[in-house]
Amino acid sequence: MVSNNFRSTCPISTGLEIFGDKWTLLIIRDMIFGKARFKEFAEGKERIPTNILSSRLKSLVEQGFIMKEPYQLKPKRYQYTLLEKGNDLIPIMQAMAKWSTDHIEERDALPIFFWETL
Amino acid sequence: MVSNNFRSTCPISTGLEIFGDKWTLLIIRDMIFGKARFKEFAEGKERIPTNILSSRLKSLVEQGFIMKEPYQLKPKRYQYTLLEKGNDLIPIMQAMAKWSTDHIEERDALPIFFWETL
Repeated sequence: MVSNNFRSTCPISTGLEIFGDKWTLLIIRDMIFGKARFKEFAEGKERIPTNILSSRLKSLVEQGFIMKEPYQLKPKRYQYTLLEKGNDLIPIMQAMAKWSTDHIEERDALPIFFWETL
Repeated sequence: MVSNNFRSTCPISTGLEIFGDKWTLLIIRDMIFGKARFKEFAEGKERIPTNILSSRLKSLVEQGFIMKEPYQLKPKRYQYTLLEKGNDLIPIMQAMAKWSTDHIEERDALPIFFWETL
């Protein structure tokens, strides 16, 4: 849930309160790379625990970062789509990727489109 | 402690494993804004719990983001200074601050020098 009772009015602190954890931005990353369904997120190489995945997806929908909609009716199945508020997290992830590439050995190179996004 | 057993080789994931929490980047922020001593960090408006502060400072020193050195010998008192690995987190915080400014109401404006850093 988004809280209006942020611990301060600092924009860095506020951002950290919303997505300052080890998993939220990975879900956004996966969506940028084309994933849309629960099973696809759950099968990622980082093996996000499904209870955390459920909780993060719910929170991201509630906060307007992503949208949940059915792609099949019988049985009902859902997919997730990035909204502007989520898409605008890309520069943060670009900066993180640059930092890791500069400071941690042998990280993957991200595809060109990721750097060109936005 | 820094781990060499990252959950994947994705540079975004790696970054999140190191500083993907609600507090680490706030300590770096405070150092950019001139704070250097434990007491100064503890007195910040976000009220970081002192056990978390101790743990994060220790980890940041061990991982080479910051340096700890005495500024007074009797009694011995320490201060912390940013190293390159920590200073290079600034673009991530700049991107977070931009996101919050765009998407969350009534955030503080950060001083010009913060945007010009790097």
